[in-house]
Amino acid sequence: MSNFANENVPIRTSAQIETLGAEIICVGTELLLGEILNSNAQFLAQELAALGIPHYYQTVVGDNVRRVQAAIAIACERARLLIFTGGLGPTPDDLTTEAIADFFQSPLEERPEIINDIAQKYATRGRVMTENNRKQALLPVGAAVLSNRTGTAPGMIWEARPGLIILTFPGVPSEMQVMWREVAVPFLRSRGFGQTPIYSRTLRFWGITESALAEKVAPLFDLTHPTVAPYAGKGEVRLRVSAKAGSEAEAQEAIAPVVAQIQHIAGADCYGQDDDTLATVVGQLLQAAGHTLSVAESCTGGGLGSLLTTVPGSSRYFWGGVISYDNAVKESLLGVNPDDLMQQGAVSSIVAEQMAQGVRSRLHTTWGLSITGIAGPDGGSEEKPVGLVYIGLAGPENQVESHRFLFGASRGREWVRWLSACSALDLLRRRLQAG
Amino acid sequence: MSNFANENVPIRTSAQIETLGAEIICVGTELLLGEILNSNAQFLAQELAALGIPHYYQTVVGDNVRRVQAAIAIACERARLLIFTGGLGPTPDDLTTEAIADFFQSPLEERPEIINDIAQKYATRGRVMTENNRKQALLPVGAAVLSNRTGTAPGMIWEARPGLIILTFPGVPSEMQVMWREVAVPFLRSRGFGQTPIYSRTLRFWGITESALAEKVAPLFDLTHPTVAPYAGKGEVRLRVSAKAGSEAEAQEAIAPVVAQIQHIAGADCYGQDDDTLATVVGQLLQAAGHTLSVAESCTGGGLGSLLTTVPGSSRYFWGGVISYDNAVKESLLGVNPDDLMQQGAVSSIVAEQMAQGVRSRLHTTWGLSITGIAGPDGGSEEKPVGLVYIGLAGPENQVESHRFLFGASRGREWVRWLSACSALDLLRRRLQAG
Repeated sequence: MSNFANENVPIRTSAQIETLGAEIICVGTELLLGEILNSNAQFLAQELAALGIPHYYQTVVGDNVRRVQAAIAIACERARLLIFTGGLGPTPDDLTTEAIADFFQSPLEERPEIINDIAQKYATRGRVMTENNRKQALLPVGAAVLSNRTGTAPGMIWEARPGLIILTFPGVPSEMQVMWREVAVPFLRSRGFGQTPIYSRTLRFWGITESALAEKVAPLFDLTHPTVAPYAGKGEVRLRVSAKAGSEAEAQEAIAPVVAQIQHIAGADCYGQDDDTLATVVGQLLQAAGHTLSVAESCTGGGLGSLLTTVPGSSRYFWGGVISYDNAVKESLLGVNPDDLMQQGAVSSIVAEQMAQGVRSRLHTTWGLSITGIAGPDGGSEEKPVGLVYIGLAGPENQVESHRFLFGASRGREWVRWLSACSALDLLRRRLQAG
Repeated sequence: MSNFANENVPIRTSAQIETLGAEIICVGTELLLGEILNSNAQFLAQELAALGIPHYYQTVVGDNVRRVQAAIAIACERARLLIFTGGLGPTPDDLTTEAIADFFQSPLEERPEIINDIAQKYATRGRVMTENNRKQALLPVGAAVLSNRTGTAPGMIWEARPGLIILTFPGVPSEMQVMWREVAVPFLRSRGFGQTPIYSRTLRFWGITESALAEKVAPLFDLTHPTVAPYAGKGEVRLRVSAKAGSEAEAQEAIAPVVAQIQHIAGADCYGQDDDTLATVVGQLLQAAGHTLSVAESCTGGGLGSLLTTVPGSSRYFWGGVISYDNAVKESLLGVNPDDLMQQGAVSSIVAEQMAQGVRSRLHTTWGLSITGIAGPDGGSEEKPVGLVYIGLAGPENQVESHRFLFGASRGREWVRWLSACSALDLLRRRLQAG
């Protein structure tokens, strides 16, 4: 086992330390094999961002002492807070604590309070602590116990050298999260971390590409307080406006005018903020107007209704619909004209309109929204390629409209279906907002 | 911008190179802010494991040239294959290519074939390429284009120095995965990677818990050739049977008897293998029997139909259905008895059965499958708690059955809806397999 001696690493000045951030080090061969998704890294990253603790790197490394120590050697050059997850359990491949202690040349000592805690937890479940659990009671001399209320393996809080703090957590997300919130955050605050948290608002857009939006708001990307950054989501674009400030009020004061400016530039392409989805926004607009909605779906097969009903309480405005996958259902349950189906085909403007009108009148709702298209991979032709979708909307004045979309074949069936459902919601949103 | 000069890094011997593996470097401030889950790292890790390419580290770094270059400096000391995701888009914070080129002191050059490809993709969607897309056509001199069939940003394949191969991918998972499978894997194989790959088959289970299945097949977990490992999926359980072998035939010879043994032990709880889903299996069974299906959905709001129609060609056996979110729709379109609705409530065995019968008779299909339940978070009572779901099935002999499920409230609305749709498919699967 190689040693990276403490004394070989230069002591940093406090000015150097100030500019360093946190590094998340996730230990586990299961991560390198792709057996689990690294949700711990996401959780900790969100928490660090909310606390305003800078965080520039994440490392994932397997259950191997030499490689964990190589990762520590790198991390303690570029961070002042090392947050480990994983490798604290009782089995031989759990070696995070041992690797850390050896790296900093600190002996391990057994902590009786940990043994007692584990023995008690086993007792309440009517079990007897096994011998391999003793391993979990070993911590480097000088480290404090980061207690684990909901599981057996505790972590540690250790200032391994001046200005370098180490926190370790088990890999089980639920245990890690409780330990983080209940023990680590208060500790970090007591040590001066998280004094100027980052506040942010995310604006959400539909119906505009990332590059087109980026060109429209380009000058805002140069701002430093707040900052503006674009993200491409699943068919949507987002702009995140963030400010670091001593208080939420102060941050919002910096953020609000920039948000207003973006909303002004983007107009109706901006559909919402933060946790909004197209389905929640449409739901709020329908409720505000006292309107109801039904849907008629062909290629989405129920996906539009499913999306609408992700929203709790959607039964207040969404009454249901018809999945008219087969043409016979378009005729029998929606009253689509068989001649039009024959002459124009199921994927046509007139069928989309009749589907919307049919479901609206049969379900007695304010609006009827329909989708008919070719999701692929088969079924396309030169005239009607895969990705061709018609969306129909029938409204309260008996008006009806339809729109033609070309979503392309290259990103596959589920992509066409997703864009179809979202574009249908977006069409209704724009009509409700305009009305 | 700091430079890490090529000549400062010692040339490695081929023996040194042999022991090195791949490193995944994910670039994106959104990862450091925890805004997205790093599913790309998991996908690539699984793929590397399947190919038998060793992989010891993953690094996540933000959209910052200096820090990306610091990560490269470290990675090219400990890996011979650097796989980048993210930072290939058109906006100013997309700087992965630039950081790599500058690190290896290679100028960037515009590739006309990329410009043409992007312009064409914009044209087929009826849009005009924006100026900032030109940036995506810049690659280091000597790098090959890693073409992106499904999106605009291509990646690169570059032997940046002897024995060090760099691959870059966009951050959009669907694009990255297609590029990996279609371009990167054949390239890596041609360069001698993945010569003793790991072959595996995954058995999929529904209706049994991970711990119950693990107890049944416990002795198999001690096997070393092939190995058997359990995974918990989204409501389902999987067992992966893997063997490392020189040829697929040799691996399958080791795997097949163990697969057969597991199938024998698990019986009907094992619903399929590898890429099977409950929807594809149900589809195959319906087609084989020459049967058709319709659905009536309440709490899933279209999710069951949506799941069935994820399968290309599902129109051959799935005719459609009714989303009867509101009780009025249950009466008008499905013929549910208003007295039963009043007395038993919408979430009841009798309503589930009438929904299934109603949709089957109105759509003239062999089977009618229905779901009615309380997805929450509100609407539960002591008698009918959140998570209570009835699934109804009406069949070809006019028989009808219903089943009561308690999915619990603790994992949320979408979890209840997902389990409802899958359990409905599983019920039909078992009936079709038994018949």
